[in-house]
This record gives sequence, C-alpha cells and structure tokens, in this order.
Amino acid sequence: MPNTKIPYKTYLDESEMPQKWYNLRADMKNKPAPLLNPGTGEPMKAEELEGVFCKDLVEQELDNDTKYFDIPEEIKEFYKMYRPSPLVRAYFLEKKLGTPAKIYYKFEGNNTSGSHKLNSSIAQAYYAKKQGLKGVTTETGAGQWGTALSMACSYFDLDCKVYMVKVSYEQKPFRREVMRTYGASVTPSPSMNTEVGKKINAEHPGTTGSLGCAISEAVEDAVTHEGYRYVLGSVLNQVLLHQSVIGLETKAALDKIGEKADIIIGCAGGGSNLGGLIAPFMGEKLRGENDYQIIAVEPQSCPSFTRGRYAYDFCDTGAICPLAKMYTLGSDFIPAPNHAGGLRYHGMSSILSQLYDDGLMEARTAAQTDVFKAAEEFARVEGILPAPESSHAIKVAIDEALKCKETGEEKTIVFGLTGTGYFDMVAYEKFHDGEMEDYIPSDEELEKSLAKLPKVEEK
Amino acid sequence: MPNTKIPYKTYLDESEMPQKWYNLRADMKNKPAPLLNPGTGEPMKAEELEGVFCKDLVEQELDNDTKYFDIPEEIKEFYKMYRPSPLVRAYFLEKKLGTPAKIYYKFEGNNTSGSHKLNSSIAQAYYAKKQGLKGVTTETGAGQWGTALSMACSYFDLDCKVYMVKVSYEQKPFRREVMRTYGASVTPSPSMNTEVGKKINAEHPGTTGSLGCAISEAVEDAVTHEGYRYVLGSVLNQVLLHQSVIGLETKAALDKIGEKADIIIGCAGGGSNLGGLIAPFMGEKLRGENDYQIIAVEPQSCPSFTRGRYAYDFCDTGAICPLAKMYTLGSDFIPAPNHAGGLRYHGMSSILSQLYDDGLMEARTAAQTDVFKAAEEFARVEGILPAPESSHAIKVAIDEALKCKETGEEKTIVFGLTGTGYFDMVAYEKFHDGEMEDYIPSDEELEKSLAKLPKVEEK
Repeated sequence: MPNTKIPYKTYLDESEMPQKWYNLRADMKNKPAPLLNPGTGEPMKAEELEGVFCKDLVEQELDNDTKYFDIPEEIKEFYKMYRPSPLVRAYFLEKKLGTPAKIYYKFEGNNTSGSHKLNSSIAQAYYAKKQGLKGVTTETGAGQWGTALSMACSYFDLDCKVYMVKVSYEQKPFRREVMRTYGASVTPSPSMNTEVGKKINAEHPGTTGSLGCAISEAVEDAVTHEGYRYVLGSVLNQVLLHQSVIGLETKAALDKIGEKADIIIGCAGGGSNLGGLIAPFMGEKLRGENDYQIIAVEPQSCPSFTRGRYAYDFCDTGAICPLAKMYTLGSDFIPAPNHAGGLRYHGMSSILSQLYDDGLMEARTAAQTDVFKAAEEFARVEGILPAPESSHAIKVAIDEALKCKETGEEKTIVFGLTGTGYFDMVAYEKFHDGEMEDYIPSDEELEKSLAKLPKVEEK
Repeated sequence: MPNTKIPYKTYLDESEMPQKWYNLRADMKNKPAPLLNPGTGEPMKAEELEGVFCKDLVEQELDNDTKYFDIPEEIKEFYKMYRPSPLVRAYFLEKKLGTPAKIYYKFEGNNTSGSHKLNSSIAQAYYAKKQGLKGVTTETGAGQWGTALSMACSYFDLDCKVYMVKVSYEQKPFRREVMRTYGASVTPSPSMNTEVGKKINAEHPGTTGSLGCAISEAVEDAVTHEGYRYVLGSVLNQVLLHQSVIGLETKAALDKIGEKADIIIGCAGGGSNLGGLIAPFMGEKLRGENDYQIIAVEPQSCPSFTRGRYAYDFCDTGAICPLAKMYTLGSDFIPAPNHAGGLRYHGMSSILSQLYDDGLMEARTAAQTDVFKAAEEFARVEGILPAPESSHAIKVAIDEALKCKETGEEKTIVFGLTGTGYFDMVAYEKFHDGEMEDYIPSDEELEKSLAKLPKVEEK
C-alpha cells in the first residue's frame, strides 16, 4: 500500500491559480536570438510583425525584459473552465516499477482539445478580440492546436479558419468534427483558397500536404483578408509565455505538498509544452537559486536538438514567415511518418534552443515503438491513455525511475503529460498489430536538408 | 462576471471520499421485485445465481436490507486514480442562458473509459479476483462498459473477454483498440465461439448483431468455462450500489459548498448512472428528510419509462438470463438507430422501475436532434464535449433553467454528466451535416413487442 500522506492528485484552489505569466527571457543572460526579416536580414520590427500577428501578441513576442505579464481577467476566468490541472503522484506506476523514485506528472489532457494547447489559444483569441478583429487563421497537423483554437474562438465569438494538412483531414475526420462542433471552418491544405495553395496543387497534383504548406496558406489567408491575423500554437516566445501557467501551477503544487523536483522531463516538438513546464524551474536555475536536471525528449525520427544545427532557418516551407534562430533539421526536412504528429516540426523554439546551447538542459531521443511500449504500460497502471507526444516524456521518466531502482536514489521526477490519445488510436492499432516501425534519418538525409539553410549574417 | 464565491469546480479531498456504498433498497418501503427463475417462476436463489455471477456480487444483488457496504481498500485505492470527480458549477452555461437558476453537474468523464462505468467495473473485477477466478466475460454496445471492464481487469490481472456488437466492432474500431490497449480480447458478436452465436449466425447470415445477442454469448461463454463469470454494467442492483459513489460524492460536495439541490436530473438507459446519482437524495426523500424533484431522461426512440409496461421480462434477447420486473418495451423491441448507444436498452433497472411506479420520480423523453443541439451549446460554453447519453440530461437541465428564467425562480439544478463524446464523432458529424433524424416508435410497434412479454404469475 503506497504512502498516502501525499494525495494521488493535488489540485490548487482556484484562489491559488497563477495571476501572471512568467517570461523566462527576463532571467536569461543570453537572450534568444531575434526573428529576422528574410529580405533584409534585420531584426523584425513590431510594425512589420503586426501585419501578421495581433498587436499585443507582438509586444509579448519581442519583450525580453518584462518578467511577469498580468493574465487578463477574461483569460483567468476561462482558465477556470479546465484548470487548475492536477499534479498527479504516480503511485501506481512507482509500485509497478518498484522504484524508490517519486514520480509526479502534470496532466494537461482533461479538456476537449485533449492537450495543453488551450492555454495559449485562449490568450491569442482574447487579444484578437480585444483588437477588434473578425477572426484568426491557423494551421493544424494532428489537430490538437486546431481544436484548442476553435474552442477559444467559439468562446470569444471570433471566426476561426483552420488549414488542416490534407492527409490528417482525411485520416482524422473525428478531429475535424470536434472543430466543427466549435464552429470552426476546416479546410484541407493545400487548398484552392490561396495563391500558395494553388501553386502547390499545380506543381504537385494529388499532394496530401504538409505542415509547412498549411502554415504558408494560413499566413496568406490572414494577410490578404481585412480583420484577420495569423496565430501559431508553438515555437513562438509568446506561446511559451502563456504556457508558463503549466510550470507555475506545477511549482505551486509541489510547494503545497512540500516536494522539490530533481528531474523535470517534457516532450519537445516546437517547445510549447516543455518551455511552459520548465519555465519557473529554469528561472530558479538561471538565478542560481536551485538546480534541476531538465530533459527534453524528442522523436528519434525528428531529432532537432540532438542532431540538428543551431542556425537561422525558415519557420515554414513556403518561406513566408520571418527567420528564426533555432536548433533545426532544415525547413526542407520531411519527418518520416510518425504518429506523434505534434512533434514533427523541423525546428525548436528559439528560447529553448538558446538554453540548450548554453548547456542548461539536456536532450534525448526516443524510438517510436519504445514510446508506445511506455504509453501502454502507463495506461494500464495510471488509467490515462496518453497522447503519443506525451508518451515520449513517459518513456524517459520510466528510464530515470529505473535508474533510481538500480542506484537506490529517491529522486523526485516530474514530467509533463500534455494530453490524451483518444484521437490516436490508429497509431495504437499499428502498435498492437506489430506494424509500427522505427525510423532514424540517415546522416546524408540530414546533411542534405541542412545544406539548404539560408545564409544569414548575424548582426 | 459570475459570483465566484463558489468555485467553478469542487473536488472533495481524498480523505472526504465515500468509505461505503449506499444501498438505496434498504430505505425503500416497496422493495424492487426479485429476479425470477424463468423455468419455475420462483425467485432466483443465491446458489442459482452463483453459476453466472461472482459470489460476493450475488450477495449484494439480493440484499435489500443492509444500508451500507464497506468499499474494500483495494477499490478505494483504485478510485483515487480517477476520483473524486468534480462537481462543476456551470457558470458559463448559466450566463449563456441568462437564468437565475444555479446549475451544477457531476462530471464522470475524466477517465479513459470516458464514463462512470469504471465505478462498477472495478468493483466487479475485484470480487472476481477475490474469488480466485481466471477472468470475466461481458458484452458491450457503444464500448464504454467494455473499456471500463478492460481497465479494471488489467488492474487486477484478470482475463477479460468482451463480446462487442458486430456493427459497433466494425464502426468503432477505436474503442476496440482502447480495450486492446488494456489487454482485453474483443470478439465481434454474433461469433462462432458460442452455441447461441452459431445458431444466430446460421439463422440470420450476415447479421450485424444486437446487444441482446451479445449478452447471451457472454453468459454462455462464462458458464461453459471453468473459472469465469459474467459481469454486467447496468440494470442490476449491485451496479446501482457501486454507482452510489457518484451520488454520495455529489451530496458531500454540495454540503461542502452549502448548497441544496432542488432538481436532480440524469439520463436513463439501464439506470446505472441515474440510480447512482440520485441514491442519497432519494434516500432522504424516502426517509422524509428532504424533498427533491428527480427527473429521468430517456431517448424518444427508446422510451421504457414513459411508454413501457411495468412487468416481468427477459433481460436478454436469448432469454438465458433470469426474468426481471421492470419498465420494459419488451425484450423483442429493437430500438431505432440512435447514437446514444448506452441508452438503447429495452428495460430499466428494477430499483428505478419501482421508485417510478411509486411516483417518487418523473421521466421525460428527448428527441435526438434536440439532444445534440443541447450538447453543442453545452460544449461551446462549458468546454466539455459530452457523450450523447449524457446530453439527454443536459437537454432537460437547460429546459428547467429556462423555466426558471421565465418564473424568476433561483432553483438549484444538479445533473449527471456521465461521460465524454470523443468516440461519438460520427453522430456529431451527422448532426452537423443535417443528416440526423428523430424517431418515435409507433403504438403498433410497441404493442407488438409488449405482446410477447412472458406470462408470469407473481407470487
């Protein structure tokens, strides 16, 4: 029988929920590199970005110094719809593993978007509404971000146009229906709605699309329609700012039960979850107040941190967006079919890239079949069916807990369980049927896409 | 801005969770009618039932007098995996409706089975394990019960054989995969595993099955294999006993925030959710301590309470199971295709049938398209995508809240939100595409199936 002095689930009271987002950049000595104008090579100015993004969000994007941003009342109220999320003590998993380690996870999946994405989508929708816009555009791959944005837009009565990668649109009709339930219009990409879509359709008849292409379509749609702006669910500084609510709640809950984390683990695609989860812990580390081992986990098939280059690159395939300095595999890199759709991005948030380059965190890869093994083991004892993305963190949490079993160390491991896998059963089916394959990109493949990185002279 | 003195979500502390299940029958003056042996017309004896059901469960099934049953430690521990479930104040819905009513819902969907079914499946698996059995068999239609049972069996390392109605097996492959994730074997019914399955396949080649047929197969499989018993997710007294945890938590949470319910609403299929939710409130009503308006909501297409007859009937189509006295449409009644799969049962729990017959609760029907309208309205403001079953309760809760708006009454409405609709997106799609139809069975249709009720002389 486990020691039940610490509850299975710790919820903050609503009065204990964060009132401010924490801007990790304010505590970074080496600031993340600025976005560059691909034409001039100069840092993007606010007025340039405001054609694409909402005004207040541009301010948040560029602000490296303000340590805290007040969370507007309307957003705090919306947060109460599905937050605080529980910090769960994984007693059942600990028992199964026979580890002396204490394992905790912050579970962000108890909302209809099925993930943490709602934390930022509601903020972005709020600022769009505040600016008096008609609506927003975005792209979605696996569909979690599109669902989160459609929920947020429905709440603020904003028009929501989602460009969904065609192959996902066809293979994930249920995700599409959830978005429709929230009133979003969902268009398979590439479409005939945009010039870039028409061009791609003409050049590649029958293409099933890509995330890079969908981004380009969503941006074009926003800048060519009065009263619309483009919003993005990861990578950007503003997104990590909003997602800091995950880490702030985690820290507050740990403090409440008198625990201190030793290891913090998160999956890493564009970096939204990881950046949010680690924010206050990394802040303490940067200020020299506490030390933590921080581990990013990425798919073996899309290893930006572990095999990418730290360089300026395009954020989208169409090269419409500004250049960002990040650990990247090259915007030309096409990740192998991998069911953790949310981790299939060629680059990594500039903030996390800088922290990684500064040696403040480590990164590991996980093979897909190992990830699903961990997911199933976790589901059977903890009762939650995890998303493939989140399961990357589970895999490494189990690895670390088993190390503790060997050494006898009673480390406190905290990982981010970003979401549920209810819409990923096709992947689970492949795993059950033994049809899932691992994929490791070859050195030649990576060299080829990295050779196409834009030439940028940093100023 | 809503009054936030009462939190959006009230969670009991783990120490406040129920320690005992409440047996409503102990407070009923008119006890529910006993199960009868179809051969002799005599009440089923414990030893007759023990061939089909686990020993401890038979005891619970037949006990009309013991008021409280201790919840075994192992089950209390498992409950902490996903309970306590939140009692949510529907501030967002109230605001949208502009009602002076206070609306609360008990949300049972935050677990992988997606519903309240886990409350009883873990209990049934526990007693099977305690008895030293190898495994259990069951049937599932929509798949929530099958998922809940597979989770419970995985936890206790029991074999779990699920007979899934063939049409659901084929149309809901994702549900099937969730069950496989938990190690269950899932067989499309009718199968060639059982005599009754072979017979039905021979008589109706190409049939897509029915719940009644799947029950018969599961029962036959259990009684013909050493070390197996059959378990059922609704209708039975034991199931309502386990589900009383819903009502007990609801009552404790209301007491904690100083609220008293005026109206309690639940959807009704076999009665597991409704019976559990209302248990302690009905108890107070029976003991004359408090009065509550209690409303059962059933689909217009399967109206057991409102258009059925209170009589002894078969529980399954194959007539293998004992006879139960219940409000029934006749075991021959085939409900029209209706996406609230969990509510498509021809009869109703004997306990609820007796209470209804005694005038202690009322019943209403809801048309399917109205149910989905309510579901979508709810999803947009409360952020939870409800199961079609649960949405029957939402529909009537909204109706009652709008009545309060007219009269100005500040009633406190509590309803059961039994689960989520992530695996019901085909139904949502039909609704969005305007292809959903309502169905009202004709009087002739009902008379025809009721004419086949077995002749039973009550002793």
